[in-house]
Amino acid sequence: MAESRPTASVLVTGSELLTGLVADANGPFVSRALGDLGFEVRRVLLVGDRPEDLRSGLEFVAGDDLVVTTGGLGPTADDLTAEIVAEFCDAPMEVDTALQGRIHAKVAGWVARTGWDGPALDDSIAKQARVPRGASVLEPVGTAPGLAVARAGGPLVVVLPGPPRELTGMWPAALASPPVAALLARTPRAEPILLRFAGLPESEIAATLRDIERELDTSRVEVTTCLRRSELEVDLHPLPGAEDTARELSGRIVDAHRRRLISDDGRSTDELLAGALLASGRTVATGESCTGGLLAGRLIDRAGSSAYVAGGVVAYSNEAKSALLGVDPALIAEHGAVSPEVARALADGARERFGADIGVGVTGVAGPGGGTEAKPVGYVCFCVTTADGQVLARDPQLPGGRADVRERSVDLAMHLLLRVTGVTGAGAHR
Amino acid sequence: MAESRPTASVLVTGSELLTGLVADANGPFVSRALGDLGFEVRRVLLVGDRPEDLRSGLEFVAGDDLVVTTGGLGPTADDLTAEIVAEFCDAPMEVDTALQGRIHAKVAGWVARTGWDGPALDDSIAKQARVPRGASVLEPVGTAPGLAVARAGGPLVVVLPGPPRELTGMWPAALASPPVAALLARTPRAEPILLRFAGLPESEIAATLRDIERELDTSRVEVTTCLRRSELEVDLHPLPGAEDTARELSGRIVDAHRRRLISDDGRSTDELLAGALLASGRTVATGESCTGGLLAGRLIDRAGSSAYVAGGVVAYSNEAKSALLGVDPALIAEHGAVSPEVARALADGARERFGADIGVGVTGVAGPGGGTEAKPVGYVCFCVTTADGQVLARDPQLPGGRADVRERSVDLAMHLLLRVTGVTGAGAHR
Repeated sequence: MAESRPTASVLVTGSELLTGLVADANGPFVSRALGDLGFEVRRVLLVGDRPEDLRSGLEFVAGDDLVVTTGGLGPTADDLTAEIVAEFCDAPMEVDTALQGRIHAKVAGWVARTGWDGPALDDSIAKQARVPRGASVLEPVGTAPGLAVARAGGPLVVVLPGPPRELTGMWPAALASPPVAALLARTPRAEPILLRFAGLPESEIAATLRDIERELDTSRVEVTTCLRRSELEVDLHPLPGAEDTARELSGRIVDAHRRRLISDDGRSTDELLAGALLASGRTVATGESCTGGLLAGRLIDRAGSSAYVAGGVVAYSNEAKSALLGVDPALIAEHGAVSPEVARALADGARERFGADIGVGVTGVAGPGGGTEAKPVGYVCFCVTTADGQVLARDPQLPGGRADVRERSVDLAMHLLLRVTGVTGAGAHR
Repeated sequence: MAESRPTASVLVTGSELLTGLVADANGPFVSRALGDLGFEVRRVLLVGDRPEDLRSGLEFVAGDDLVVTTGGLGPTADDLTAEIVAEFCDAPMEVDTALQGRIHAKVAGWVARTGWDGPALDDSIAKQARVPRGASVLEPVGTAPGLAVARAGGPLVVVLPGPPRELTGMWPAALASPPVAALLARTPRAEPILLRFAGLPESEIAATLRDIERELDTSRVEVTTCLRRSELEVDLHPLPGAEDTARELSGRIVDAHRRRLISDDGRSTDELLAGALLASGRTVATGESCTGGLLAGRLIDRAGSSAYVAGGVVAYSNEAKSALLGVDPALIAEHGAVSPEVARALADGARERFGADIGVGVTGVAGPGGGTEAKPVGYVCFCVTTADGQVLARDPQLPGGRADVRERSVDLAMHLLLRVTGVTGAGAHR
């Protein structure tokens, strides 16, 4: 079925990426953008900077309609992508003198500031102005131009710089270049649908899909599921002409799991919560123990969050819980610092101290030490309370190590906050 | 030169990775681990879940000595890695009944809790217990076993699960499995050296390396640099026999930039700070505005941090700064909420409220709104004060967007805290 979409691959170059010290951001950016444009992205390949790595990588993806390379366009001798791509496309390299002049003009300011200049700089610019004959030149964002050049009977190759800022800056020009625009014009584009669920295991979605497939031919909708931030993302990519099927499929999945739905339009918990708080004019305060500030940090991730985040206290010790959030020491003595009672006192205390409308308290055993038989590592108590008397409490046993427990705790607290605002999956849906 | 090291590639499977919705963590983990073990990592390849994607991916890397695959070991029909690897290695699939029993035992608790059970579950387990004949089975961390199986005349293939927690959990067992251990025994291992610097631009290290190369043949030491958490990591990987050269090179780099050195033994700022606080028995409290809890969250990232983190307050509003940390409203009125004076008051207030030895205050303009000509987006004031009267203050203009400014602010606060503890690069060095 997928034959009807053009295929694409991404070739990411850079020896530093193979050390694992730095994560590649270009592969995800380009593959997502290509998928949204209607391409079937077949692979992302990370290779080193050596000519043979590039050559074998290009040959590996030579069967695709489009290949996007990133990196290896710098001024130094080990930046060889343009040359190897020229060789792959059987196009000789030529100096583009107009381009050379434009790069000179671009670096003039930098030269004036730093005093760097001379033959080494001229060589660098001359190298960056050499392009394969017949290539479309993409204007430099830094000093390296991008390229779009076709191999006869093979793929169109789009050559982009490695620094993510330069790459994303050049992306619109790449799409607008004549050979890419011509390919895009032949690429049928279908809108993807993104569903988000909370607390739904992947196996449940798999079972639902199997049920639906008995009645509905879903073979022209690519479904991928992925667990992220404790939410299950279900991504429906219709092949050309299958948009109605994708909508029908989406509706049926939502009907089967409406209670777990966060959104059917791609909006995240964070986005929905921010919107709900802004709309209602309510504010939130946090009283955190095991999550130690991460929940507050997540809440204020979004620009404009000062409108609805009143503040928070990280109260690790019992003394701090009492001194800063007014938790009764007797309550801690009776129930323990990790208890639903103390979670509620943290929520109430934070709400009152900051004069907020909603308070959230989190206390738990993040590990690796500190667990007991009754309260093992991963046992976390949550409570959300509101000025008008709502109380929402949970005390699950969360799986994983210290970092997992803390991350999942923040996710769960965000979900509880969203629930208290009254925004539900059903409400967000249609 | 590199011919003397065995080569390895990583084959990461998962259609969701090609959508760009989720970043791959396994490729970086495995490639770094393999590099440290002495392998020359030639490529990291991300492919979809279809049999032909896996097949062509395996053939592409068939010339390497070791191939590590991740993902595709789940219970559903599109999890095909074990089968395709068996086919690649020409080994028939067989049910390992002992393994089947162990997986049953593993899921028994989950079944009891959830009530999920029945033929679908039995099928899943039977599928996951099918392994290629002759393969070494790596005990499941979740429910999927890993595998190590060789292709005659080709690579050793190590098959690992996709969830990062399962993969990292299984890694020690993978290295200990007989075929991998045998390959490692033939792999000359040269200890890498990791240097960390604060506030050093990459171009400076490049210039230093060029200077050193005039006097020292460094061709057998692979040097990669990478900027992470506002620190420059310089990774020196000696090829076999070049350990002395790597040590010499490391010493010269350190000598050239000793003032900027954080550590020459791979230890991070966080690790050094935790060690210094534990050793001195001192505690820290935070008063955060623009970083909104992220600094507290970073401080308590480490297990055992309750010994040295007293707590923290996230005080976004002026009222909260005054009510919870005792910041004089007149001080805010006179200097503004983002000012060195208020940063100091936040530090003092946090220290006093929590009864800590060290207080740290952070207040700044994270953006995108809120900037003025005098205090633009990215202007952040830091202050660290101690009970014995030390004061360390900074108010830099940090580059980037909201997330960048906040991340860099946390990094810088960690560096200032480290400095106040008296641990310096020179001290950490030799």
